[in-house]
Amino acid sequence: MVSDENSKKNKGDGKNQKAAPQKTHTPNKPEFHKKNNGKRKNNVKIDKKKIAKPSIKVMFLGGLNEIGKNITLFECNNDIFILDCGMAFPDGDMLGVDLVIPDFTYIEKNADRIKGIVLTHGHEDHIGSLPYLLKDQNFPIYGTALTLGLVGNRLKEHNLLYKTKMNEVKPGDVIKLGCMSVEFIHVNHSIPDAVAVAISSPAGTLVHTGDFKIDCTPTAGGMIDLARFASLGNEGVLALFADSTNADRAGYTMTEQKVNESFEVLFKRAEKSRIIIATFASNINRIQQIINCAHKFDRKVAFSGRSMINYITVAVELGYLDIPNNVVIDINLLNKYSSEKVVLITTGSQGEPMSALSRMAYSDHRKVEVGVGDFIIISANPIPGNEKTVGAVVDELLKLGCEVVYESMYEVHVSGHACQEELKLIQGLIKPKYFIPVHGEQKHLAKHAALAKAMGMESSNVFIGDVGSVIEINEDYMKELAKVQAGKIFVDGLGVGDVGSIVLRDRKHLGQDGLIIVVAGIDEYDGHVIKGPDIVSRGFVYVRESELLLDEIKKCALNALEDCYEDNITEWGVIKNRIKDEVSKLIYDRTRRNPMILPILMEV
Amino acid sequence: MVSDENSKKNKGDGKNQKAAPQKTHTPNKPEFHKKNNGKRKNNVKIDKKKIAKPSIKVMFLGGLNEIGKNITLFECNNDIFILDCGMAFPDGDMLGVDLVIPDFTYIEKNADRIKGIVLTHGHEDHIGSLPYLLKDQNFPIYGTALTLGLVGNRLKEHNLLYKTKMNEVKPGDVIKLGCMSVEFIHVNHSIPDAVAVAISSPAGTLVHTGDFKIDCTPTAGGMIDLARFASLGNEGVLALFADSTNADRAGYTMTEQKVNESFEVLFKRAEKSRIIIATFASNINRIQQIINCAHKFDRKVAFSGRSMINYITVAVELGYLDIPNNVVIDINLLNKYSSEKVVLITTGSQGEPMSALSRMAYSDHRKVEVGVGDFIIISANPIPGNEKTVGAVVDELLKLGCEVVYESMYEVHVSGHACQEELKLIQGLIKPKYFIPVHGEQKHLAKHAALAKAMGMESSNVFIGDVGSVIEINEDYMKELAKVQAGKIFVDGLGVGDVGSIVLRDRKHLGQDGLIIVVAGIDEYDGHVIKGPDIVSRGFVYVRESELLLDEIKKCALNALEDCYEDNITEWGVIKNRIKDEVSKLIYDRTRRNPMILPILMEV
Repeated sequence: MVSDENSKKNKGDGKNQKAAPQKTHTPNKPEFHKKNNGKRKNNVKIDKKKIAKPSIKVMFLGGLNEIGKNITLFECNNDIFILDCGMAFPDGDMLGVDLVIPDFTYIEKNADRIKGIVLTHGHEDHIGSLPYLLKDQNFPIYGTALTLGLVGNRLKEHNLLYKTKMNEVKPGDVIKLGCMSVEFIHVNHSIPDAVAVAISSPAGTLVHTGDFKIDCTPTAGGMIDLARFASLGNEGVLALFADSTNADRAGYTMTEQKVNESFEVLFKRAEKSRIIIATFASNINRIQQIINCAHKFDRKVAFSGRSMINYITVAVELGYLDIPNNVVIDINLLNKYSSEKVVLITTGSQGEPMSALSRMAYSDHRKVEVGVGDFIIISANPIPGNEKTVGAVVDELLKLGCEVVYESMYEVHVSGHACQEELKLIQGLIKPKYFIPVHGEQKHLAKHAALAKAMGMESSNVFIGDVGSVIEINEDYMKELAKVQAGKIFVDGLGVGDVGSIVLRDRKHLGQDGLIIVVAGIDEYDGHVIKGPDIVSRGFVYVRESELLLDEIKKCALNALEDCYEDNITEWGVIKNRIKDEVSKLIYDRTRRNPMILPILMEV
Repeated sequence: MVSDENSKKNKGDGKNQKAAPQKTHTPNKPEFHKKNNGKRKNNVKIDKKKIAKPSIKVMFLGGLNEIGKNITLFECNNDIFILDCGMAFPDGDMLGVDLVIPDFTYIEKNADRIKGIVLTHGHEDHIGSLPYLLKDQNFPIYGTALTLGLVGNRLKEHNLLYKTKMNEVKPGDVIKLGCMSVEFIHVNHSIPDAVAVAISSPAGTLVHTGDFKIDCTPTAGGMIDLARFASLGNEGVLALFADSTNADRAGYTMTEQKVNESFEVLFKRAEKSRIIIATFASNINRIQQIINCAHKFDRKVAFSGRSMINYITVAVELGYLDIPNNVVIDINLLNKYSSEKVVLITTGSQGEPMSALSRMAYSDHRKVEVGVGDFIIISANPIPGNEKTVGAVVDELLKLGCEVVYESMYEVHVSGHACQEELKLIQGLIKPKYFIPVHGEQKHLAKHAALAKAMGMESSNVFIGDVGSVIEINEDYMKELAKVQAGKIFVDGLGVGDVGSIVLRDRKHLGQDGLIIVVAGIDEYDGHVIKGPDIVSRGFVYVRESELLLDEIKKCALNALEDCYEDNITEWGVIKNRIKDEVSKLIYDRTRRNPMILPILMEV
């Protein structure tokens, strides 16, 4: 990895590159919310100097220094394609935000050069932003059958299905996207039909793993195509982009078969109890295992949760879920069967407040009442940040008298991502010249980079990027270019991008400290106070028990208004600020709080 | 554990108790926020029937089904004493709340019978509510030297020190509190000077462990006094109340010596780097280890963070921290020493936004700038709920180029609480007749109860309580009585209890969806609209980009007002509701959001 300047210096002398290794890891701060960095229009002209070798540019519009929102652009000559188009869930400080999507500015500005969107698998953090991109754009989509089935569902909801061209591919297929071609390679993950991609370009071959793990004995779909990775490695790979999600976990991710064994043990242990299992709706193979186990133990299966029903519908339609006859029952019939004869598969493994399992825990589910005699298995780990909500749901279920299997009590969950030994194996097979860890926070990227270095890769050949980063790679060098516009766009209800940092700052202020409104009527001729001031408060104190304080505030506001009148201050902005200052001071002195203060004046 | 009714039936026949075991774990819902449950005035008369044996009542005002806010009352004959008086940190949904304290109503109503407050150790979740209780009450306090030193600091801040009688005790001491006496027993924990208590009463002996672990090789203070627990067990213990915090962790908590070894390894590895270690300010022994290690490696030590300074000051004054000459330097002198010559000990191990380490991570610390060449050790685990903030701080430090040791990368932290094997050992030594797991959420209490049962204790002799629970214990039975008033009181700034569920609901609404104010002037004679309506919004949308929507809202509000005028509606409550309904409908239709809508009418 060399800086822009150095690469110029070295241009005539590419082979000396390694002699002057540069610091890979430039300390940098995240560039979120800054919409205008990298304004410089990207120059796509090909270097005409005779010695120039063809190069490929890679742009990260998401997925670096964050979990989710994976989207990467590959640009060679005049052609661009998009790899994945995911969303992210909001952090705790993004109040009221439903989801986070990438900033599509660069794509919109270069729409005519974009040859298509390639998808690695059907998880929301890889496909969830498609409806927002395709609202104003139209690019062909390439993906495997299940991925396209799930995308189709999404596009239908947004009334975009009719205009979008979806092209189904299979592992082994190669598609042409301008001067680049993309080969799909089967990998293991926590959703069926996941693929990695090998990108052939004039600059060389790049491999992007997508999300993956190595499971030599998966319950369906077959083992990851390591042989293809190996032969690509032998042919020569210029750069590897690899999933870092579990880069800080030692060892191997266990095989999904382990979960199978655990289910059998637990089904036996549950005996006469009703079994309720919460898991990710997208983990079709896990759901298949549960159905198989239920069938074996002569139990019927019902489903709960909207997204569970959606995923299962698509999976059944496309043949990814094989449900024996007379096993599935409608949830409305659940109570017609005795406890030992049923299994309920439900959403809510992350303790999401509105999910089916949470509703059961808080006795708020319309159809299922849980309690003594229920055996509940949470077949998932809490995603970081969800530990408390999952814990609270477990506590409530226990209080109701349920037996609950959670966290690492039994092996009822395995991750969908590769741990350190698997990551090393992939690197060892692919033997890339350059290595770029992707998908993860700084700690995952840094650890993944350290793994690569521990395997002998030079620091200068490893790049840790950020959202907006652009790198240019060819046989001789990998260099960082100026950033492109990129960041987080917030979706709140139907609004896309109309909630930004100012709105969030106000929400935080209102949420933490509440609100005081000072409303007064001012004489339109001489500016003295005719009506009020009246005080309205929300989220500040319990009003009925704080009358004295509210009276004080009223007097304070009146004094401020009268002072302004006496001082001949007529500009409303100044008067409002005076009220704000005086009332703030009083409230802070009395309560040590800082509610938002909104003076509203009316000329009468 | 028998129900009230059953115990009446069995009163003459106590020995049959075990023949009819009752369900221990009555499914119950948490009683938080309900201030008036258990209104029934507690009857303290002693049963006069001849066969009645003396009994003791135990009331849980906090610490069950929650982490923190530990406070328990022991009541025998006409005497009461309080064991610990802790605070809790607010959950994520308690917006703007600084801390949570117990509901003291029962204590206030029975103040004349309260003989004193006994403290097990100086952590905030055991002493933090004292200033709020002692503001209006005056009870003598009993505790070990360090505990009282920390309490003294707290009371001084609240100007309560002068009036509070503090009595220092040592392990082995016995104090008399009415008809009960309390013996202090040395235990290991993550703060020095922690004790368990053995309570002798006419009903028998009770043991409460406080917070504890078993460390046979602690770095200071000596091993827990297991011998005393053993001899109490041999003498006969009626009931054991034991710390459940780690009841869901298998095995043993490692000795603090392990951390010592890790520090030595890491100090060697840090070589030329500046070392910065974040840990809990109250973990005096950990800080001593770091100082010793720094001394050995010929490094100076500086401290950062207000609470760090406070704890260290008390610990040095009382002789709990032994600092060699010329080791400690002022933080202002830090930059005068080369990197390999200093260690900075700081707060912020939980990623708290305003803490010293967070400020360093976000380049906002006034005195310390971190980056390449800093070796940072987080010597603590994230408390559940803090995983994300700790993770974010680690990410920022990594981006700045620091080397960071965090989570379980090295053994740089051990818990202060006993794991399953230790819990079993204590139970095996004490051999109580009745067992009551305390300190923990439902999952911890349930797991601890299960451990006791696995050791042969009958279900009927184990009680899982809730905040407000009262149990009565004597030789023949343990029964649950009616609950007493108990719950969570919120402290926000100087306000205690003036933020309740309504204020929190409004804060949540404002924080999630923002605010729309509709303000209009109404003719005081005929009720038609003279001024406005004007629309003010905060935290809803970015106003400058949403003028069309705001115009629509204005028109909608005007229509509502005019409709009211035409319909001869003059009651302002009705008019306001009409505006709210109409504007809500419009906004939901256009945005799928539900901001708080506040119509403000002024008669002019």
